Amino acid sequence: MSLSRYFPILDWGRRYDRTALTGDAVAAVIVTIMLIPQSLAYALLAGMPPEAGIYASIAPILLYAIFGTSRALAVGPVAVVSLMTAAAVGNIAESGTAGYVAAALTLAALSGAMLLALGLLRLGFLANFLSHPVIAGFITASGILIAASQLRHILGIEAEGHTLLEIAKSLWAHLDEVNVITLALGASATAFLYWVRGGLKPLLRRAGLGPRAADIGAKTGPVLAIVATTLAVWAFDLEARGVAIVGEVPQSLPPLTVPSVSPELLRQLAVPALLISIIGFVESISVAQTLAAKKRQRIDPDQELIGLGAANMGAAFTGGFPVTGGFSRSVVNYDAGVETPAAGAFTAIGLALAALFLTPLIHYLPKATLAATIIVAVLSLVDLSILTRAWTFSRADFAAVSVTILLTLFAGVELGVTAGVVTSILVHLYKTSRPHMAVVGRVSGTEHFRNVLRHEVETQPHVLSLRVDESLYFPNARYLEDQLGAFAADKPDLTDVVLMFPAVNEVDLSALESLEAINTRLRDAGIRLHLSEVKGPVMDRLQRSHFLDELTGEIFLSQHEAELHLRNPEAARAPASSGVAAKGAARSAESLRSGGASRNGP
Amino acid sequence: MSLSRYFPILDWGRRYDRTALTGDAVAAVIVTIMLIPQSLAYALLAGMPPEAGIYASIAPILLYAIFGTSRALAVGPVAVVSLMTAAAVGNIAESGTAGYVAAALTLAALSGAMLLALGLLRLGFLANFLSHPVIAGFITASGILIAASQLRHILGIEAEGHTLLEIAKSLWAHLDEVNVITLALGASATAFLYWVRGGLKPLLRRAGLGPRAADIGAKTGPVLAIVATTLAVWAFDLEARGVAIVGEVPQSLPPLTVPSVSPELLRQLAVPALLISIIGFVESISVAQTLAAKKRQRIDPDQELIGLGAANMGAAFTGGFPVTGGFSRSVVNYDAGVETPAAGAFTAIGLALAALFLTPLIHYLPKATLAATIIVAVLSLVDLSILTRAWTFSRADFAAVSVTILLTLFAGVELGVTAGVVTSILVHLYKTSRPHMAVVGRVSGTEHFRNVLRHEVETQPHVLSLRVDESLYFPNARYLEDQLGAFAADKPDLTDVVLMFPAVNEVDLSALESLEAINTRLRDAGIRLHLSEVKGPVMDRLQRSHFLDELTGEIFLSQHEAELHLRNPEAARAPASSGVAAKGAARSAESLRSGGASRNGP
Repeated sequence: MSLSRYFPILDWGRRYDRTALTGDAVAAVIVTIMLIPQSLAYALLAGMPPEAGIYASIAPILLYAIFGTSRALAVGPVAVVSLMTAAAVGNIAESGTAGYVAAALTLAALSGAMLLALGLLRLGFLANFLSHPVIAGFITASGILIAASQLRHILGIEAEGHTLLEIAKSLWAHLDEVNVITLALGASATAFLYWVRGGLKPLLRRAGLGPRAADIGAKTGPVLAIVATTLAVWAFDLEARGVAIVGEVPQSLPPLTVPSVSPELLRQLAVPALLISIIGFVESISVAQTLAAKKRQRIDPDQELIGLGAANMGAAFTGGFPVTGGFSRSVVNYDAGVETPAAGAFTAIGLALAALFLTPLIHYLPKATLAATIIVAVLSLVDLSILTRAWTFSRADFAAVSVTILLTLFAGVELGVTAGVVTSILVHLYKTSRPHMAVVGRVSGTEHFRNVLRHEVETQPHVLSLRVDESLYFPNARYLEDQLGAFAADKPDLTDVVLMFPAVNEVDLSALESLEAINTRLRDAGIRLHLSEVKGPVMDRLQRSHFLDELTGEIFLSQHEAELHLRNPEAARAPASSGVAAKGAARSAESLRSGGASRNGP
Repeated sequence: MSLSRYFPILDWGRRYDRTALTGDAVAAVIVTIMLIPQSLAYALLAGMPPEAGIYASIAPILLYAIFGTSRALAVGPVAVVSLMTAAAVGNIAESGTAGYVAAALTLAALSGAMLLALGLLRLGFLANFLSHPVIAGFITASGILIAASQLRHILGIEAEGHTLLEIAKSLWAHLDEVNVITLALGASATAFLYWVRGGLKPLLRRAGLGPRAADIGAKTGPVLAIVATTLAVWAFDLEARGVAIVGEVPQSLPPLTVPSVSPELLRQLAVPALLISIIGFVESISVAQTLAAKKRQRIDPDQELIGLGAANMGAAFTGGFPVTGGFSRSVVNYDAGVETPAAGAFTAIGLALAALFLTPLIHYLPKATLAATIIVAVLSLVDLSILTRAWTFSRADFAAVSVTILLTLFAGVELGVTAGVVTSILVHLYKTSRPHMAVVGRVSGTEHFRNVLRHEVETQPHVLSLRVDESLYFPNARYLEDQLGAFAADKPDLTDVVLMFPAVNEVDLSALESLEAINTRLRDAGIRLHLSEVKGPVMDRLQRSHFLDELTGEIFLSQHEAELHLRNPEAARAPASSGVAAKGAARSAESLRSGGASRNGP
């Protein structure tokens, strides 16, 4: 049992049959065809040699098949992680140097080690701190950045930079060097690929193909673009006219590489590796969960961390760079009828064959075509509607999204995502530091108590019932003191204050001090302090302090009981005294029942 | 009105009379006598020349009298802030140099500017992020550090260091240089002062003094120790035998000094200045509020920031160093019968006279006596019981206290307090990321719903009512999905899930996504999702999204209404349909009344 938890392959491998094999094999062929151009393109984006993209798809996909829990996830280089790799490694070495490739290996190893550690320590919940708006904003901004960074390949000029301003400045400075033939190739490839996304499938349907075949046929668009532009470069010797091509690519299986563990390099890459790990994990797990939900399969987040960690380790030892589960390829995999992770193994075989035999064919492939593939792919990630959604829903979420987008675009990916997380946390702390509080009264004819400002309710002049709509902890402990003072000041003939605690999920030591101070101050003013609807966990906590001994009033199971008792102390004496006895204990239902009876009595 | 808000002096100054004058004058005399040794001692602690301690008590006390809101607070050098000053300035220059004094002036100016800015921007609530356990731990650890740092003066050796280990190592290395006479003087002064704290007052009472006079007499203990040891040094020429003395102190009013604003210095001091400002503010305001509460006076935290900011600015321009409101001197001030901040002005006059005429008398004052004064004063700050209190009350608070104490002692004051705040926040985030959830049922005979595990309650087999005990936001959004799945899996014949939201104080965009996912998944499984007891602010938020349109179930004002409707859909049809109509609106009490009636009906 526990072995198959860490090796999900033991689980599905045991029940593998011919049906699964057929589904997996078909899916593998389609995904392999799709992955060849994608792998080359994302290698370009990451600043790596083209073969690294293929290598990064082979070992990782195999290792994920052993350790991963998703049936459909296809692991390999993806756009956002490749962009982050370029940003991180670009700070250490120049793209195209041996140092750059070595640093990328180390980055993959470091990221793999972090993912494995998080998985083994079962810390997958940490990824939750990347809120939905921060991820959405980050991916949108990354898409824009990636598209901008690829413009140089379309224009055929040298340009660099890791922020939008840097890229724009650099493009502007080299604008006089535009290669017109490259631009023509790149622009037409982009236009073609853009059309393919919407127009090829209906065309294939009209040509008589079935819906599934048309769907799959449409995915071959990038291959068509690659074949056509490669042939054009070869036939018209466009390389001599300045069109940048992929060039010599070694014909080989993935090499065995050993990532450097120089302390200086590890120190420089630690933060980027952590961010890449978390972003990669969040992206991958949301794809995996979306696809698993459709077939009612289960994804184990902690095991996913182990699967992705193993995949990145694999990339580090076979000449790759950081990888994660990709959205588009996984969807293709799923649509093609994948049954088990064995499809990944078959894809790996397909890519290994491609690495051995197809690489000479891409010698004349223009980089502009790869750039076009990337641009069309990432523009589908750009979705600025998150800004309007967040604005409508809450200013706090809007703040997090806009900080993330702006900083990602103009200060870099690492700062962008970090600032997004920090903003989310700060905004949350700020909000909880000034909690909502409502004076409540009884909704007529019920035992239910609501805000006097929103509902038509009954109140008693000498009782102030205040509902505290937040856990009480250090950022808001003193605020409660101030607010209670303000509310109490409006009621001169006050004898009793009831703090209604259904929304107080925690009371920490700072808040306990505040409650003690409130109790003392009210006592000095001749006012009793009661609590109602205190939850079990909070009650357990309060019992460990002296507060309950010093409390001038009582603890009521429900606000209704509190109101009955304070409205008519004589009639409700029984529940009141048992209320005192039960202070700090889980109240028995008996006293309440008598409380309920007295309500129906006089 | 608004002018007197920023200048509280306009308020109390207008009503100043002879009674107030008497109270203030008496208090001023007593506080002046107490402040002379204290000021000298804290200057020594801060690494400043002795006269700086007196200067730092004059202008600041005057400025606080104009801007501050506390009647009793006495502002000047205090132990913890002096220690932090020594740690911050010690990184920049050697104690005893002109650069050291200049950096201390800049530190005071920077801290003053920050306090003023926080006050004008009304950001006083930021101080709440220093939780009670962090402050208690920090002050305790600082007390230990301060006492350790003063041992060298008692032993008459050279030693240095800003952490306990550094100090211990340095003391150990110089242990062979102990000056026996200094040790004898220092140890007897310490023993005498320690005895004074408990033993002098009863002695004075037995000698026939009234309780108040005995109290005040006991405060003169430090002056006695100073006079006695100074005379001893002078009479026996102990300076020649190696006893370190205060030496030449200029006879002068506070000089006009202009703090340097070199960008490099400001950069180096920015973080320490912020920490000193916040620690100083928190220490000061808790003293001010404690004393104000006894006389039912009000302290305005934002105006206090302005008062302390002005005081520190005053220190920066008159040869001082960072100051704040001190505990012991404020209590003496209060006990001596202070009426208004005018007492501060009188104290300032007393100290100015001391600076002009008394300084020659302290030439032979041994530093060991000042160290003894400090040690006895700070050991009263050391209160390790916060560790056991926190341990009993909550592990989270214990984590924050112990991190603060350990890091303050062994890594320095700045790291200590910062780590304490960060730990408090991280622990809070961790806790809220795994919220408590309770399956609830109806407490028999009431309309009240509680945890099935803690109370004797009634439930229905086809309904799962789950109370979520936390605001739903990004760190726990996914956790809710997982938990709900686990709870629902135990109930095969489930038709309805009610999420009871009385404790949900916020729903952010990430949580909204999760709620939408839950709604969809339950719908696919043929289960309806309802919400109950959704609070006004949360309801307002949900109405701005499409969630309410897609929700398969209903929104009930109370869990009771939900139960009635789901138990007996026929009988409760009226409230149910009105429940649908009221989706997203503040429900009118009418529909509920009929709901309540139907409960008492069949």
